[in-house]
Amino acid sequence: MGKNRLEALFDGVIAIVITIMVLEMRSPAGHSLDALLPMAPVIFSYVMSFIYLGIYWNNHHYMLYVCDKVTASILWANLHLLFWLSLIPFTTAWMGESRFSAQPVALYGVVLLMSSVAYWILEYRIIVAQGEQSRLKYAVGTDWKGRLSMLFYLIGALLSFISPWLSLAIYMAIAMVWLIPDQRIERSLKHDVTR
Amino acid sequence: MGKNRLEALFDGVIAIVITIMVLEMRSPAGHSLDALLPMAPVIFSYVMSFIYLGIYWNNHHYMLYVCDKVTASILWANLHLLFWLSLIPFTTAWMGESRFSAQPVALYGVVLLMSSVAYWILEYRIIVAQGEQSRLKYAVGTDWKGRLSMLFYLIGALLSFISPWLSLAIYMAIAMVWLIPDQRIERSLKHDVTR
Amino acid sequence: MGKNRLEALFDGVIAIVITIMVLEMRSPAGHSLDALLPMAPVIFSYVMSFIYLGIYWNNHHYMLYVCDKVTASILWANLHLLFWLSLIPFTTAWMGESRFSAQPVALYGVVLLMSSVAYWILEYRIIVAQGEQSRLKYAVGTDWKGRLSMLFYLIGALLSFISPWLSLAIYMAIAMVWLIPDQRIERSLKHDVTR
Amino acid sequence: MGKNRLEALFDGVIAIVITIMVLEMRSPAGHSLDALLPMAPVIFSYVMSFIYLGIYWNNHHYMLYVCDKVTASILWANLHLLFWLSLIPFTTAWMGESRFSAQPVALYGVVLLMSSVAYWILEYRIIVAQGEQSRLKYAVGTDWKGRLSMLFYLIGALLSFISPWLSLAIYMAIAMVWLIPDQRIERSLKHDVTR
Repeated sequence: MGKNRLEALFDGVIAIVITIMVLEMRSPAGHSLDALLPMAPVIFSYVMSFIYLGIYWNNHHYMLYVCDKVTASILWANLHLLFWLSLIPFTTAWMGESRFSAQPVALYGVVLLMSSVAYWILEYRIIVAQGEQSRLKYAVGTDWKGRLSMLFYLIGALLSFISPWLSLAIYMAIAMVWLIPDQRIERSLKHDVTR
Repeated sequence: MGKNRLEALFDGVIAIVITIMVLEMRSPAGHSLDALLPMAPVIFSYVMSFIYLGIYWNNHHYMLYVCDKVTASILWANLHLLFWLSLIPFTTAWMGESRFSAQPVALYGVVLLMSSVAYWILEYRIIVAQGEQSRLKYAVGTDWKGRLSMLFYLIGALLSFISPWLSLAIYMAIAMVWLIPDQRIERSLKHDVTR
Repeated sequence: MGKNRLEALFDGVIAIVITIMVLEMRSPAGHSLDALLPMAPVIFSYVMSFIYLGIYWNNHHYMLYVCDKVTASILWANLHLLFWLSLIPFTTAWMGESRFSAQPVALYGVVLLMSSVAYWILEYRIIVAQGEQSRLKYAVGTDWKGRLSMLFYLIGALLSFISPWLSLAIYMAIAMVWLIPDQRIERSLKHDVTR
Repeated sequence: MGKNRLEALFDGVIAIVITIMVLEMRSPAGHSLDALLPMAPVIFSYVMSFIYLGIYWNNHHYMLYVCDKVTASILWANLHLLFWLSLIPFTTAWMGESRFSAQPVALYGVVLLMSSVAYWILEYRIIVAQGEQSRLKYAVGTDWKGRLSMLFYLIGALLSFISPWLSLAIYMAIAMVWLIPDQRIERSLKHDVTR
């Protein structure tokens, strides 16, 4: 029950969050490409947030695929995750407009951290609901990648007070870790699923 | 017939309403977390409205699950509910920006009241369409929670002229009543459904 | 083929168009309900457009229900209809902000007219694609209501140069004609469908 | 697996991108139709982008129809395509507001070029995933239309520095090539599919 609508709401919010961030990129004042240069932080922030939302959508997609039973806790855990993801356009815009000032960069990291915590809660709720023979539990394992990510979001957020650029490097590195080898892992783990 | 599209439209509007409210939260003027402090009423309003929209989405989800027949009245009752829910970003933004002035807080309560009336009409229309052996009628019972909520939205809206903070407390209390024990009730009532 | 995605795109655009119009309703300057009074034309415009979009969604819903075959012409006729419906937030906002000036009211009527023409083309394309035994052809009949509506949108648009209030009365009257007896007609015509 | 959600995300983003572009068309300052005249470049840009997004949606629709297996590469190739399409409202608005200045027109062409490259990658990924007997490979053939389009987007973007009007003519011509005969080709190629 309800898996379809849970997925539909998630897909809807992700689609809107992605496109709302573009709304924050107001047309530049001038009519030359030079006018785009001051927008570099805004554009970079958009790209990074787009990658993160793509990662969440992809992982949510696999996670729900192996979810057969939907409970009220899962519905609320999903809404909780959507709450944090819905704040990403706000933190993205602030970080970009502030040209990577320390505190907006820290807040961006905090929202990433909270999103990953919310994702972890949703994952846990789904595993509990599926019972002992949960395919998700097997696929996720100890989820060291998820746990280390949370730690590094926190480190990234704190480091912004020393150097926001360091924070950005950490945020991008975590995104790359999820982006690149995930395809390989998914393919091997869920060979029967994707092929 | 049409249940899928009715759900799709509802999910679409809820997804957009949630994320549109974030658009109202413009980037703060400064680049420090202090700049977020004056935004506290805006952020609190967003959180409250997010919870309400989550409650409506969850309840709509259960209600439609036990709805087997869709009539023209149900389609229009659903659109009527969407009309009031679509006004929530407007009243949320006004309430937040006014820093909880009496009249915006009252209007927020009126829109919550009208939403719950619209939900009640939709519920009634679905029960009528399903006929005597309606599972929804059995699940909902006398719906004292729905009826008392309407009364308290009205009380909350009126009290805003004495103290808006009292109104907010009432609005939050109603949300909590729907949020917390609902999971328990749903689980017991619809044991066969969610498990 | 493709009916699901055609419906999904339509539902998505309708959901967004409805909620985008609320974005046009910026928070009033003051913090009292008096501040809402100057917004009356904006609010009225929103309500009227919401009703029209609800009518289109409902009718599209029935029309696609009796559509079994989807062709490239149908996909493009559907996109063409979405083009005109997507302009409704623009004309709604301009009409409301101009406090019902003649020319914005005329333009609003022209967009309604073009939407109904686009709907009629889509209807025709679906009937052609379904072949002789088209259920839609039977249900729609000569579609005098659709044809007269087009005429009255045109009359309404032209009358705005004499009195915009007359135009608004005509637009509302057409909406009421579609809204009220349609339920009765649908029920009798498609008894097997909705019940 | 996942085809439904891939389609849902795509449909969601296209629906939002279409309607977000309308948000860029702010209500004109005056209350007469003359006030629309200075908006002509904005309106033309919207129409052209709407047609392009319609073409992408239509082609994506056919392509996914003949896609039976979804892999992680396909999910990411789809997100990559959505990234470039999500930038269209930004380049559309800038091009319109600049009244077709050289560099915004060039950037518009670059985003069209990158979108077509992303579409080509997605097409390739789907063909690879389906294996030897891919129906898509048969339907697409050598895809000379796709390859020539990329070349002409590039030519269009470069020509904007000589005359932006020439670029616009090329962009419109490519759109027409995709729009008009595509229906005929699709009908003959996929006779069993659409009929």
